[in-house]
Amino acid sequence: MQAEIITIGDEILIGQIVDTNSAYISKELNKIGISVYQITSVQDEHTHILTALSEANNRSDLVIVTGGLGPTKDDITKQTFCDFFEDHLVENQEVLKIIHELFRRVVKQPPLPSNLTQALVPSKAEVLPNSFGTAPGLWMQQDKTVFISLPGVPYEMKALMQEEVLPKLQERFQRPYIYHKTILTYGMGESAIAELIKDWETALPTNIKLAYLPNLGRVRLRLSSRGPNKKEVIKGVENQIKTVLPLIESVFVGFEEEGHLEVIIGELLSKRKQTLSIAESCTGGQIAELITAKSGASAFFKGSVTTYATQTKIDVLNVSEALINEHTVVSAQVAEAMASQVQKLFKTEFAISTTGIAGPTKGDALDEVGTVFIAIASPNGLFSEKFNFGNNRKKVIERATNKALELLRKEILKN
Amino acid sequence: MQAEIITIGDEILIGQIVDTNSAYISKELNKIGISVYQITSVQDEHTHILTALSEANNRSDLVIVTGGLGPTKDDITKQTFCDFFEDHLVENQEVLKIIHELFRRVVKQPPLPSNLTQALVPSKAEVLPNSFGTAPGLWMQQDKTVFISLPGVPYEMKALMQEEVLPKLQERFQRPYIYHKTILTYGMGESAIAELIKDWETALPTNIKLAYLPNLGRVRLRLSSRGPNKKEVIKGVENQIKTVLPLIESVFVGFEEEGHLEVIIGELLSKRKQTLSIAESCTGGQIAELITAKSGASAFFKGSVTTYATQTKIDVLNVSEALINEHTVVSAQVAEAMASQVQKLFKTEFAISTTGIAGPTKGDALDEVGTVFIAIASPNGLFSEKFNFGNNRKKVIERATNKALELLRKEILKN
Repeated sequence: MQAEIITIGDEILIGQIVDTNSAYISKELNKIGISVYQITSVQDEHTHILTALSEANNRSDLVIVTGGLGPTKDDITKQTFCDFFEDHLVENQEVLKIIHELFRRVVKQPPLPSNLTQALVPSKAEVLPNSFGTAPGLWMQQDKTVFISLPGVPYEMKALMQEEVLPKLQERFQRPYIYHKTILTYGMGESAIAELIKDWETALPTNIKLAYLPNLGRVRLRLSSRGPNKKEVIKGVENQIKTVLPLIESVFVGFEEEGHLEVIIGELLSKRKQTLSIAESCTGGQIAELITAKSGASAFFKGSVTTYATQTKIDVLNVSEALINEHTVVSAQVAEAMASQVQKLFKTEFAISTTGIAGPTKGDALDEVGTVFIAIASPNGLFSEKFNFGNNRKKVIERATNKALELLRKEILKN
Repeated sequence: MQAEIITIGDEILIGQIVDTNSAYISKELNKIGISVYQITSVQDEHTHILTALSEANNRSDLVIVTGGLGPTKDDITKQTFCDFFEDHLVENQEVLKIIHELFRRVVKQPPLPSNLTQALVPSKAEVLPNSFGTAPGLWMQQDKTVFISLPGVPYEMKALMQEEVLPKLQERFQRPYIYHKTILTYGMGESAIAELIKDWETALPTNIKLAYLPNLGRVRLRLSSRGPNKKEVIKGVENQIKTVLPLIESVFVGFEEEGHLEVIIGELLSKRKQTLSIAESCTGGQIAELITAKSGASAFFKGSVTTYATQTKIDVLNVSEALINEHTVVSAQVAEAMASQVQKLFKTEFAISTTGIAGPTKGDALDEVGTVFIAIASPNGLFSEKFNFGNNRKKVIERATNKALELLRKEILKN
């Protein structure tokens, strides 16, 4: 079973928003054994949408369309569906009830006439009720192809996928099992890794696909396979992983499907009933933000301090002013003092600190742009390392964040 | 002049990564007057790429392709270009030199044979040198259509766009001027806004396009226009904005092109030489992260504390334990105490605090999931407001962050 995604909206084509809907839909479809052949983003323009629908119709069994379902004039998906399916709009009583209910409960005002037009749907459509907004999802069929139209607002689209689209697809279609497993590595380039594993790669069976995904000092190796028998598909991939891991042991960090580094760290600390605090300077709160993005962080994360100005390192963290004057604020000594002080202040087993120059300007520091010291305090002691992460501000912050989590994970495992 | 973007990579179609490259390229092309007609994401598969190239060739004057240029076996873009252009690969001496140089300077090891294959390029291609990686960009022409191939790694792609692609496009092609301006509103739904401005919208000249972009309590209204005369294009849009603003005065926040709220706040504070500190609980560092994402934050941002655990609100911020016991940790009183304490601790004019329950579990709190108190301390005094931001964790954090910045901006303007 092959799917396509069509996202509608000028905001995508002028780069005003990043299309995150497609990635979400692709991932969810993959989980239930449906692979996505192509993603196409088109303008809010009648002929363009019609062409995209008819091309997708010729290629795929399932087409998921997002966007263009709002109550305003620039939203034309419903009318275009009518033209494509030679259909017309009719008022749907179920949707009308949901709209009235939503306005009574949430908006606390009566709906406007334009809100009520949201209850108009193509007569041939099966309506998928939207719990978070006025635009319902639509399920329509042309020849053998199923077309599903969903609103473009991400949380409405996600709720409709979970509550309506995925259960119905699973119920109505036979699908193979698809399995991906992604090896995370750190510290070696993709060609060097390819060299290490080339004999293994050449011998891979044809039903297992390998992809290299390089980014900022990390290379991810994704193995993918599919087939009718779930157990055999998983076994095939897992056996290959067993063979390849010893070849890349020195750079192996973990598996993406087991969660990102911050999730792995959270699980480690929760299991050990140990706690973490963070003192951030150049990373500006990014590490804390990653750590708290997942629910459950309160089990191990006590809190963090972002001491962006030099003076606050003295006032808030009690780092000695003499130490800063002697070694400068971007130094191993100050990084270690920050980690040790935040560990004390928040009464935690582990603490991370960062101090550096994210750039492009140098702030209070004398060192080169890109220089970052990371310190880790643990029940075992205190250490720091110096890095240079280049001259791109975002990249420096991201790499420093990754590296800090990397060092922390290793330190936790030693304790 | 009409462009298309083709992004190549299974990682996009299985939802493993979000395609941010397309948004970047679209935005940059728009700035120089080139509009993007369609974005297509296709698999690492020879026939599929060939089909996408030939369809784009029939529709557009410029096709930018990203991805599939790495040194490993899953990278097939160059070979597919050769087939499409009836060409073959030749070794390019300039690229070879760059590769050797990059390995000497950065990798500090001699290149592997697979790295040297990166110097093989189609004989008809104009090479665009890549300063950050081994894969060069390629500029090729078929009939009247220009095809540009760029690496998929975002920072390499961005550098090539800035250093090579955009200057060459500007030099070689006549382009119209494109102008977008986006009105930011807060606190009213899109249909209600549409109702307020419907007469104005109906009277809009056909060369000015209006789009409604709703998301999480904010609606953005984008006006777009294009034409040969830059001054007239801008004047046309700005005149319409002058007419519409009085109609939506109560919900108008600013213009997206003048920067997001955090940028506006940074500029306000820097100009006034005033400073900010933050005490975050449920937002977990997100506000500080937004504030420090842009360079120059050290001019006004002293730092922040994320007191995730209740005990750290007492230990680090000196919030009184009795106050917490009396009012619970998620309360107006605790929010205000946090703002006032962090303002004192960091010695700043302004301070923000948040305390709430992001969910899905309730942590230390008794209140409903989604409840958030936001407090603002300023030279004028101290206040807090209570909100409920729903039951989706990410949404609660994002809305609380937006709301806190919103309240802060208003408070700064009063001082």
